[in-house]
Amino acid sequence: MTSLRPYYQAAILGVGLIGSSVARAMREAEIADVIVGYDTNPAHLATAVELGVIDQAFDDLSAALASVSLVIVAAPVGASLDLIERAAIYSPDRTLIMDVGSTKGAIYHAAQRDENKGCHIVPCHPIAGTERSGPEAGFATLFKGRWCILTPLDRQDAPYLKAVENATDFWRKLGSEVEVMDAAHHDLALAATSHLPHLIAFTMMGAVEDLETVTEAEIVKYSAGGFRDFTRIAASDPVMWRDVFVHNKAAVLEVLGRFTEELIAMQRAIRWGDAETLEKAFARGRALRHAIVEAGQEKDVPNFGRDD
Amino acid sequence: MTSLRPYYQAAILGVGLIGSSVARAMREAEIADVIVGYDTNPAHLATAVELGVIDQAFDDLSAALASVSLVIVAAPVGASLDLIERAAIYSPDRTLIMDVGSTKGAIYHAAQRDENKGCHIVPCHPIAGTERSGPEAGFATLFKGRWCILTPLDRQDAPYLKAVENATDFWRKLGSEVEVMDAAHHDLALAATSHLPHLIAFTMMGAVEDLETVTEAEIVKYSAGGFRDFTRIAASDPVMWRDVFVHNKAAVLEVLGRFTEELIAMQRAIRWGDAETLEKAFARGRALRHAIVEAGQEKDVPNFGRDD
Repeated sequence: MTSLRPYYQAAILGVGLIGSSVARAMREAEIADVIVGYDTNPAHLATAVELGVIDQAFDDLSAALASVSLVIVAAPVGASLDLIERAAIYSPDRTLIMDVGSTKGAIYHAAQRDENKGCHIVPCHPIAGTERSGPEAGFATLFKGRWCILTPLDRQDAPYLKAVENATDFWRKLGSEVEVMDAAHHDLALAATSHLPHLIAFTMMGAVEDLETVTEAEIVKYSAGGFRDFTRIAASDPVMWRDVFVHNKAAVLEVLGRFTEELIAMQRAIRWGDAETLEKAFARGRALRHAIVEAGQEKDVPNFGRDD
Repeated sequence: MTSLRPYYQAAILGVGLIGSSVARAMREAEIADVIVGYDTNPAHLATAVELGVIDQAFDDLSAALASVSLVIVAAPVGASLDLIERAAIYSPDRTLIMDVGSTKGAIYHAAQRDENKGCHIVPCHPIAGTERSGPEAGFATLFKGRWCILTPLDRQDAPYLKAVENATDFWRKLGSEVEVMDAAHHDLALAATSHLPHLIAFTMMGAVEDLETVTEAEIVKYSAGGFRDFTRIAASDPVMWRDVFVHNKAAVLEVLGRFTEELIAMQRAIRWGDAETLEKAFARGRALRHAIVEAGQEKDVPNFGRDD
């Protein structure tokens, strides 16, 4: 099998939001001739075939991987750990195996152990997504202009370094900017920019539940006051996020500690009516948002463009 | 002066985001023949005239109010308390005076005291806005489809009840749904749906500031992981929000207590690796977001439509 494209056959393990977006983006970028899919959810597999996202569906992992040279593991982190290990066993030698998990330390350590199996595992994290789930939620431009972080294994042999280069090319072809860092630093940076915000949003849902005097109908009606913003990321996949907090405990607890200290300081300022401290603290947001818009990571429209 | 419109001359006290939006919406709804504006910021006043938002600008409050029959006070709560008191002195008898403040208890109690001055003060809170400030940020449709809460004074005389009816008509003409409730209940409901979310978003800005090992550049680059969502409301006017927390201390501390309890429970679940508790807690968001979309308070698009 020869191909003018970088890969002849690629497998997507998990055809949900991220996996199906990778498959779609791979088609547009002409990265593989054939894309096969594997998923433990038969309905998702059927939908992915129906939508033309994958060419062939497999419910047997070893069959799915028999002829691949590229594997993308796109499952929650817990399931990914298992899938990466099995993919390294079933895939032909020298297959490039990438995952897309939101925590990298656990993946990194598991992959270091699996490295004797002849495949090249490059842990990846494309920082992109929406609050929707399933193959129909994916789209080809999801990764465009977003960052993808690679946390390669501790190997300096030429074939592996070439695999990291191929992984870098892969994400660039999907429209992403690529950054390489160690897994521990990734997990701390993402604890701050992603895991903590999600935890806080999930917590907010619980805080307004069963309020004695304010009804859920009122929460819904008056949500335009700010609450509705938090419901977007709080609507994200519960299993995916459960796994993030199980597998990034230390970093999350560290940034959560900082958040709590800050929150207690705010609480004290409110209790004492310390207007000066409040105003000073509240003045930090505009510059940070401006920087995010400048960096191309947010649209420059008020209210997320809701009023357009 | 007779007019076919509900009011001949109206005054907007504070021509920022909300005041200038009210003025624009009043024009479209043909509510007043003449709209005059007052603001302590001369640049804002000049801009509002330039944009045609107001017909005439005043830097003297008594002059602005000499011929009005309708006053909208659109300033931070602290300044509004003072403006309502002075408007009740300077305005002709029977003038309808409304404010738009985000807390209502403090306004209500001050207005009860001012009620001997012949005007009809109806405390209002349109639950609408964006993170932008100033007269150029306003637009006529800001209040369309949003809720406006009225917390009328404890008066049962016919002229006042008629004034409350007129206030209701006013907001309906601007496209809002109107709800009447007591000020204390408003302050608790909005503490949950608006004040707490803002406090948490402001706190998040502080929590990521000066992290020892993660740079601000990284926070910005990887903000698409969730953090950028929080920066929207954290970019809101610091003075307006300072006043909210100064004037709604009790209700905010109450809902903040609930939030903290919930957060500590989440923290414990993470520390113990209690996957079941986490997944169950994380599953609450989707139903709540769905209800908010169903109620017309949020667009039914993934990722706030950022990917369109």
